[in-house]
Amino acid sequence: MPELRKDLITERWVIIATERAKRPSDFTQPPIEPEAAVCPFCPGNESRTPPELWAARAAGGPNESGWKVRVIPNKFPALRIEGEMNREADGLYDRMNGIGAHEVIIDTPEHNQAVEDQPVANIALALTAIKERMLDLQRDDRFRYILAFKNVGREAGASLRHSHYQMIATPVTPYRVKAKLMGARDYYERKERSAFQDILRQEQSKGRRVVFENPGFLAFCPYAARFPFELCVLPKRQMADFHGITGDEILQLAEAMKFTLGKLARGLDKPQYNLIIHTAPSRAGHRRSGYWDTIDQDFRWHIEILPRLTYTAGFEWGTGFYINPMPPETSAAYLREVAL
Amino acid sequence: MPELRKDLITERWVIIATERAKRPSDFTQPPIEPEAAVCPFCPGNESRTPPELWAARAAGGPNESGWKVRVIPNKFPALRIEGEMNREADGLYDRMNGIGAHEVIIDTPEHNQAVEDQPVANIALALTAIKERMLDLQRDDRFRYILAFKNVGREAGASLRHSHYQMIATPVTPYRVKAKLMGARDYYERKERSAFQDILRQEQSKGRRVVFENPGFLAFCPYAARFPFELCVLPKRQMADFHGITGDEILQLAEAMKFTLGKLARGLDKPQYNLIIHTAPSRAGHRRSGYWDTIDQDFRWHIEILPRLTYTAGFEWGTGFYINPMPPETSAAYLREVAL
Repeated sequence: MPELRKDLITERWVIIATERAKRPSDFTQPPIEPEAAVCPFCPGNESRTPPELWAARAAGGPNESGWKVRVIPNKFPALRIEGEMNREADGLYDRMNGIGAHEVIIDTPEHNQAVEDQPVANIALALTAIKERMLDLQRDDRFRYILAFKNVGREAGASLRHSHYQMIATPVTPYRVKAKLMGARDYYERKERSAFQDILRQEQSKGRRVVFENPGFLAFCPYAARFPFELCVLPKRQMADFHGITGDEILQLAEAMKFTLGKLARGLDKPQYNLIIHTAPSRAGHRRSGYWDTIDQDFRWHIEILPRLTYTAGFEWGTGFYINPMPPETSAAYLREVAL
Repeated sequence: MPELRKDLITERWVIIATERAKRPSDFTQPPIEPEAAVCPFCPGNESRTPPELWAARAAGGPNESGWKVRVIPNKFPALRIEGEMNREADGLYDRMNGIGAHEVIIDTPEHNQAVEDQPVANIALALTAIKERMLDLQRDDRFRYILAFKNVGREAGASLRHSHYQMIATPVTPYRVKAKLMGARDYYERKERSAFQDILRQEQSKGRRVVFENPGFLAFCPYAARFPFELCVLPKRQMADFHGITGDEILQLAEAMKFTLGKLARGLDKPQYNLIIHTAPSRAGHRRSGYWDTIDQDFRWHIEILPRLTYTAGFEWGTGFYINPMPPETSAAYLREVAL
């Protein structure tokens, strides 16, 4: 069973994945993205993965080929779905057993098809899968937070090349998520306005950092971007939870993603990147606390796209203080001019 | 002039390094560690760097060869030493001009000599240089925080191979530093004991995560380690500021560093790593706030060593929640057995 451990000083939780544990000698060479001889995510190889949890199909039955999007449990999960929560002291320290969920959303049957090369309807189908799985995982009151993300490229943490998203449900609200939630709440208390709505208006009116806009979404390079070409995709409608998205909004988000990821791929020669869906915590696990009472007003789900073009160095690890060699205005101007 | 910008929600500051700014096309290929034809850090090439700020010499005058350790301003500084602090609003957002200091400590005249291959006396000389430069920079009341760190290897952010440390003095207390300081203070208020002293005692008594110990220092893999083979080097004597270290303690720290970095190099085939000296904020810049009144009791400087053996993925970027595939007890047991 994996284990969660809390840092005594920063109160940051860490997953110690004892079952996935590698031998020390596995670390003497840098990890290499294995181009598996047989890709477990390709159609026809469904038996090489755990049985599917959800699928959108053009043909075939469960765990057969013919699917367009397929959701499976991660074969090597960071957290385990089975078991009771168990929190205990370990001397001075705190730990709990690694209860959670870890799922994989295979967003295309085609081995080499990047998101930006998919039709809008297919991108929308993957987003629908994420919404449906979030709705389902939200029912489990052991989970405090559900994160959906995509790693593209070896240095962005992808261990398989075939396009996929991942979802991890955790029994604690993660450190950085809490900072964002509390920042949004403090802003709302102080100003009686949503920080996200203020940002949306300011970016729309200035336009210098905007890369794409449609009726539902604004994609822009954030004012205090940590990385060159960092992007935020923000819905125009107030919604704390990603799973509150409507069918029409899913299509508009898919369009925004195809456009912005297409610009990155064309303008920067298919960079490696991380894409993260920041959503509100699962309220099932927080029901008793009343802590997030104003979250439907003060927090808004959004997507972060972080191209991995620079290396993170000691300064950033030590301080959380990033040095960005590219002003977001320059990043946005460059992306606006990339022809698709 | 570089610019500091604050994220509206998380209140995290970012340095937008406009003067170091690259063209967008510079990012279409991953950065490569340039093996400069002429290394600017090697003896004989002193004229290729800005004039030195400090040096320990066996022979020669300022900016001549014969030095053992040499401190210079960074030729491409992330922050600039000249100018007045200027804080202003930018619409909703906050920014200030990028006042600070950025120095380089060249810790050996030999181009290919890693820290673990240096004699203890030479490692101690570099630590003395850091102490002296911190004492000097502490006098400038524009600076809130002074971070010293070392990046080894391209993926750890090193742009030159010749061994060096860097120091950056910032006009704000960084995000992650503040979390650590406040965590230590809260613990002290609650328990009326130092969290660092509690950790020291627990690690000494258990021993399972200990890698090295001498009269002044304990080196161990932290309980909630984020990375395989992550190490903390903690002084046994209570000191908030690194610059409070005595000459004898510097020698003992140099011994601890030579030993632990030697174990990492031998056991893991010279991994890339970041080394960070976490010290208390500069009180000159905080004098008026009275905010850190108990810091001399509640916070203790320490060193973090973070081998770069795994890639940071979307989950970690999105949440600050790390998945460590190697329990620190396993890391420590392995390092204890590496023969030097």
